[in-house]
Amino acid sequence: MTQLNIIFLGTGGSWPTVKRNVASIAIKRDSEVLLFDCGEGTQRQFQKSPLSYMQITKIFITHFHGDHFLGIPGLLQTMQLNDREDPIHIYGPRGIDTLTTQLLHLGYFKPSYHVISHEVADGDVIDCNGYVIKVVRANHNVPAVAYSLEENKRPGRFNKPKALEMGIPEGPLFSRLQKGTAITLDDGREIMPEMVLGKPRAGRKIVISGDTTPCEKIRDAAKNADILIHEGTFASDFEDNAREYGHSTAQQAAILAKEAGVDRLFLTHISPRYIDKRIIEDDARKIFSASYVPKDLQQVVVRLKK
Amino acid sequence: MTQLNIIFLGTGGSWPTVKRNVASIAIKRDSEVLLFDCGEGTQRQFQKSPLSYMQITKIFITHFHGDHFLGIPGLLQTMQLNDREDPIHIYGPRGIDTLTTQLLHLGYFKPSYHVISHEVADGDVIDCNGYVIKVVRANHNVPAVAYSLEENKRPGRFNKPKALEMGIPEGPLFSRLQKGTAITLDDGREIMPEMVLGKPRAGRKIVISGDTTPCEKIRDAAKNADILIHEGTFASDFEDNAREYGHSTAQQAAILAKEAGVDRLFLTHISPRYIDKRIIEDDARKIFSASYVPKDLQQVVVRLKK
Repeated sequence: MTQLNIIFLGTGGSWPTVKRNVASIAIKRDSEVLLFDCGEGTQRQFQKSPLSYMQITKIFITHFHGDHFLGIPGLLQTMQLNDREDPIHIYGPRGIDTLTTQLLHLGYFKPSYHVISHEVADGDVIDCNGYVIKVVRANHNVPAVAYSLEENKRPGRFNKPKALEMGIPEGPLFSRLQKGTAITLDDGREIMPEMVLGKPRAGRKIVISGDTTPCEKIRDAAKNADILIHEGTFASDFEDNAREYGHSTAQQAAILAKEAGVDRLFLTHISPRYIDKRIIEDDARKIFSASYVPKDLQQVVVRLKK
Repeated sequence: MTQLNIIFLGTGGSWPTVKRNVASIAIKRDSEVLLFDCGEGTQRQFQKSPLSYMQITKIFITHFHGDHFLGIPGLLQTMQLNDREDPIHIYGPRGIDTLTTQLLHLGYFKPSYHVISHEVADGDVIDCNGYVIKVVRANHNVPAVAYSLEENKRPGRFNKPKALEMGIPEGPLFSRLQKGTAITLDDGREIMPEMVLGKPRAGRKIVISGDTTPCEKIRDAAKNADILIHEGTFASDFEDNAREYGHSTAQQAAILAKEAGVDRLFLTHISPRYIDKRIIEDDARKIFSASYVPKDLQQVVVRLKK
């Protein structure tokens, strides 16, 4: 079974505090690490985590405020010092090509591996190996996007009694049918997988909002997601500030999570003003009980539903 | 008495580890904080230290490898978010103007306070309030400089018996003479400070090498320094690597410190390969016993000599 883990590398907003570094979320899927935002100090958070930054294949930037991207140049330089040869892809809204070029020309640095930037926009679907990344417009005070990681559909449940009834011998043929491959029996009968499999089942879905006010597009994207990672910069008593700066309160994120029917909501981009995370968590849980404020370096395992 | 404290914000070289962040040294003198190099994550190190980054007046960059300057943009942006209005000065070797401009144009950021860059070269003396910063050419694999902070001379020791013998009444007049001001007694005699003061005494001196092979210019600059902060990237068994990449071994730094007659040597820019700092410290102490490898956030008080 493909492992899918989230590691919250930085859960703070605007600037780092002793407890929370600025924005960065790593998702490990099999041997690949995907990075969503890369604030200053992300490479050091990796050092403190069980992950290796050498496994990063793609970096997705939500918008161009420093606390979301200033960790890129140091990370790229360190990869080089550690003899990286594999290309790395950086995705972001319009302007990512210019920004990437700028970040590659600071001081004495020339990458010896390929750094490839990709401009993305609302509605784009990036087709990856076994999953897609969908791009959704967010609503911040600068152009911003959210990302939805959606695994490909899995084959339906295998109907073992039916397979036995059809005279298919238990063993390797079962396994091939389970993986969606047609087989031919010794008696010449051809068995199509759909004859013994239920309806294809949804893969896992993780939606990452970046900085945003609560918005419909993200709510729609998050429909039935396993995990919604949404910013909750402030508690409800700072709703005016949230609106003014293009952010959400924890409670607004919780309303959105509830409406979208997600399994769990993780709140990030916590303002440095909050020393005690319970203020944010309690604000959200009034609306949606499965709301959590992760600590930096906290790991969340996303399991396949039965 | 003017306080002069060094806080080692980042003592690692090349890339950050769990224990050591990349290069940054703060010197607090009175209410002013001077920053020597500013690797990625420096603003977070400030958060963990007793200092405030809002007190930084000047940043001195030794050279343009990422581990020495990539913390600048985040620091400047955070100052802005905290309503900085005071100007900030950034010094560095040729190219600092271009680099500063680049760092001020990443993403959506426009500073509302003045950021002023200053190109420096070997032999330059930056005259500050009560001290100077001297610039010395270092010898790295890219253009690099070292900095020497030298306090102005202090008035000589006050000869109290002599003052009393001359009929000067104890009290505020003593204090004025001690500060170097001439006075006139009630009987009309004019007393010049040098009549009751010994020879002017040297202020304190701290030399910061940046990345460099051991070199004569830095040794000369460090003559009789209270503190030499010198890179000691490797222990002696990696002397070939040190030479190849323009670095020093701990022992080479110790030889230089001994020749220069400094009081104490602090070794920084420790390679990530060293988990145990004693390897570096022992290597240096074979030559110069007052050699230390500081931990990140360690504070050193530089006292005036009697």
